[in-house]
Amino acid sequence: MGILPFVAELGLVDHHCHGVLRTDSTRPEFESLLLEADGVSPLGGSFFDSAVGFAVRRWCAPLLDLPRHASADEYLERRNSLHIAEVSRTFLMASGIHTFLVDGGFQPDRLLSAAELAGLGGGVAHEVVRLEVLAESLRESSPSEFLDAVRSRLASTSAVGAKSVAAYRIGLGLPGVRPADADVERAVGSWSSGRLENPVVITWLAWEALDAGLPLQFHVGYGDSDIDLHRCDPSLLTPFLRATASLGVPVLLLHNYPFHRQAGYLAQVFPHVFCDLGLATHGLGHQASRVFAEALEIVPYGKFLFSSDAFALPELYYLGALLFRQALSDFLADGLRRDAFVEEDAHRIARLVASENAARVYEL
Amino acid sequence: MGILPFVAELGLVDHHCHGVLRTDSTRPEFESLLLEADGVSPLGGSFFDSAVGFAVRRWCAPLLDLPRHASADEYLERRNSLHIAEVSRTFLMASGIHTFLVDGGFQPDRLLSAAELAGLGGGVAHEVVRLEVLAESLRESSPSEFLDAVRSRLASTSAVGAKSVAAYRIGLGLPGVRPADADVERAVGSWSSGRLENPVVITWLAWEALDAGLPLQFHVGYGDSDIDLHRCDPSLLTPFLRATASLGVPVLLLHNYPFHRQAGYLAQVFPHVFCDLGLATHGLGHQASRVFAEALEIVPYGKFLFSSDAFALPELYYLGALLFRQALSDFLADGLRRDAFVEEDAHRIARLVASENAARVYEL
Amino acid sequence: MGILPFVAELGLVDHHCHGVLRTDSTRPEFESLLLEADGVSPLGGSFFDSAVGFAVRRWCAPLLDLPRHASADEYLERRNSLHIAEVSRTFLMASGIHTFLVDGGFQPDRLLSAAELAGLGGGVAHEVVRLEVLAESLRESSPSEFLDAVRSRLASTSAVGAKSVAAYRIGLGLPGVRPADADVERAVGSWSSGRLENPVVITWLAWEALDAGLPLQFHVGYGDSDIDLHRCDPSLLTPFLRATASLGVPVLLLHNYPFHRQAGYLAQVFPHVFCDLGLATHGLGHQASRVFAEALEIVPYGKFLFSSDAFALPELYYLGALLFRQALSDFLADGLRRDAFVEEDAHRIARLVASENAARVYEL
Repeated sequence: MGILPFVAELGLVDHHCHGVLRTDSTRPEFESLLLEADGVSPLGGSFFDSAVGFAVRRWCAPLLDLPRHASADEYLERRNSLHIAEVSRTFLMASGIHTFLVDGGFQPDRLLSAAELAGLGGGVAHEVVRLEVLAESLRESSPSEFLDAVRSRLASTSAVGAKSVAAYRIGLGLPGVRPADADVERAVGSWSSGRLENPVVITWLAWEALDAGLPLQFHVGYGDSDIDLHRCDPSLLTPFLRATASLGVPVLLLHNYPFHRQAGYLAQVFPHVFCDLGLATHGLGHQASRVFAEALEIVPYGKFLFSSDAFALPELYYLGALLFRQALSDFLADGLRRDAFVEEDAHRIARLVASENAARVYEL
Repeated sequence: MGILPFVAELGLVDHHCHGVLRTDSTRPEFESLLLEADGVSPLGGSFFDSAVGFAVRRWCAPLLDLPRHASADEYLERRNSLHIAEVSRTFLMASGIHTFLVDGGFQPDRLLSAAELAGLGGGVAHEVVRLEVLAESLRESSPSEFLDAVRSRLASTSAVGAKSVAAYRIGLGLPGVRPADADVERAVGSWSSGRLENPVVITWLAWEALDAGLPLQFHVGYGDSDIDLHRCDPSLLTPFLRATASLGVPVLLLHNYPFHRQAGYLAQVFPHVFCDLGLATHGLGHQASRVFAEALEIVPYGKFLFSSDAFALPELYYLGALLFRQALSDFLADGLRRDAFVEEDAHRIARLVASENAARVYEL
Repeated sequence: MGILPFVAELGLVDHHCHGVLRTDSTRPEFESLLLEADGVSPLGGSFFDSAVGFAVRRWCAPLLDLPRHASADEYLERRNSLHIAEVSRTFLMASGIHTFLVDGGFQPDRLLSAAELAGLGGGVAHEVVRLEVLAESLRESSPSEFLDAVRSRLASTSAVGAKSVAAYRIGLGLPGVRPADADVERAVGSWSSGRLENPVVITWLAWEALDAGLPLQFHVGYGDSDIDLHRCDPSLLTPFLRATASLGVPVLLLHNYPFHRQAGYLAQVFPHVFCDLGLATHGLGHQASRVFAEALEIVPYGKFLFSSDAFALPELYYLGALLFRQALSDFLADGLRRDAFVEEDAHRIARLVASENAARVYEL
């Protein structure tokens, strides 16, 4: 159950994460941020009685100088007795992540910025631009100005990648054809204001990101209750992936659970497609290793990345990184035990997944 | 491989089961009741050559004073030499189930009633009303009388829950909007007689059950050959679940295999949703533990229940309970071995899934 | 980790495979034939860094008198220093396959014929006729002549089975009704030439194969980038399977990954349905055992077959057979360890899946 030394020491690139809260959390807020539910219900009991809840008590408590398996109340009392910046620094530093690719597009007011996060964590941060949020911020302009403004922003951005939340807005069944400008302008004209849910505009944004040479992340699968899970099967993206393969710009499928096998298939057959287990890693707690092994069944090892998808709670950075190391170590130890590959191969696979694939994809 | 003592001793609430046959079974009938097929075919061989078939020979034979792994013929010969009530009593008593929630709506003439079952098993029985069967029994009345009659029956029922077999009739893509009475009356008018397959009426029944405060069970996934499995993905229920969350009445997703991960997701994000592994538990035989662990990946432990879905053969009560205990024990022993939680936590998880979640959901 | 002796010695019927290349391969060609991608991309790295790539280095290298885990370059250098017929003979003989059911309909010019393959492998070959290729070869005739010609060819073929690639052309949502001749003739009339993608014609071909008494294979799930994976869920075939059950002619679901649980369900509930893990077996490399165990969860053991789906590289015959043996051995050893069945049962299960089910289905 120990982590192989060369895996424990790996520096990580977290290619998809978010900021952490600026403030302490009450127990209800903390519990609701552990999982993807909107909140805790008396009908269902405490979220500390879940895989990730037990992982907090087991792994995070000792970093706050509590015994392993401290109770939820002890944990939160201790946590709130410390300064939140100190708590965040502790968990970020312990994660071993040296590079953060931060999607700052969700609830930016509550969270530390990418630069602040990197400062606390002793690493480097790069931004990932959330396409729908960018579009919503530019909606005021006329349709043709809107197209120009989006293009200009993507061309000049300092972000190292873009992210689409098509999964949350329209599902992943994007068409396999680039929308014509005239159609996009018409669609923008019919989008009155507020939340962008127009499939033509959302598809067009994805194409524009690739045109700008930005590696494009898609939320896939497991997420909060806004999702209709069956519309988030990554294989629904097949026509889009087929149409964009020749552009040579990477597309990254995030999380994917419970469609991680489908994601591995797509990453195998399309040259520009990559995947990770993201959010699911910490969500699975002590069962992360089995699902991680499933995710690596048919994907070439040059196509799989680490991400934490940590949001709001710094514990999730630490748990994401720790459970990733544990799962990667279990995967490699099992392969070595079965004589599937040799030590040198195991080291190379570890480096690929921990950071080298990300460095190549994002040209870090 | 042993079962942890505190799991072996748990009293169980079986929140979804059926009656057992009043008569002996021939070998063809027994085999066809072991699985979900309509019958055995010479093309495919004996159903004793299956996970559940081997489980009968391994675990049930000793309770009839045969050696473990007795042959199928020996087993059936011995079984038919005893009185069927004695056989049923033996397996029901050995299951450790103290409370039975019985859906008596399928083939009631062949089966013991809920009260008879509880009498044999030394436990307590409650009824679950099967909505489509109730509706079919009231079809004679005029449309508006029909609506009143259904409402009145649901308001006055002694049942502790309701069950929908929408999966078998129309699939699980129920709309996210409550049907208007006028639309339901029109739909009832166009439903000539016999088997109810009208989506408006079936959806309306589900809403009415929740209005009456009845916890609502849905058949999901694995079932007999009437099912189109891809229409029984529980995530197709998302619009319905989103629309009914605020009612605060529990919705229970039954079986779920092979969509048990999707079910766990829904139980996590919606406050009123719960799930089990039901029918799949005995169907998986000696492989039940792995799938059970999958089913518990992301569901909070306050949201998962035990059920046997036993039907016709009392062996299936015993096997459902035994394989559930084995799988729960394996899950907890693995967590303890990994130091994911401590003994006290393992005991609490065990009590929750064995009976406490069911007691809370159904207010037993 | 060793293979149980009685599994190691099993003679295998490979009920779905293809020819091997007549020529040596360059490293790019070899890598691209290892997986289902169209080719290797610098963005994603070498395909030797994959489960099947490591399996080649581990298991195939010693058969060419190299050390285990020889490097990719050493392996290919050694391989190309030998005559390709010698390489092919080595791997085919080592596979322990005595009967090959060969689909020769894909890229026949590059590959050895069924007879040549059997000659090299020291076994017997039978042909499987690929329905869409047969139809394309007969398109020149008038619509009504076309129908007669197809029927006549299927009635007189020496093939022991037929194969549909509906998955690649239209997805698996075939209707549950036999197309009328007039509709088929109209569809043939509207099919100008070349690649057959007409759903009426493709459905009709499947019915005609069954009418001719030919066991009918369907490609399902995992395949190359032509596939839209979500349209290849075998449960989409349910209406077709329901409609054809009474014909009593076997239908075989190939590969199935990641829908192998769905395939197991269909094989359980429909008397004429069978399944395998095919292509996925070698694709999974050292993780084949876990997925194989999943594939056997609910399928009766009289309904599961061996196939390699080997194509072009003779290594894939050897790896398909070896990893099948390893996975079957692990499955049986686990069952014996858990006392789920006894030695005699394990032997019978092994014989069924290795060859007896295939012999019964194809009347070999």
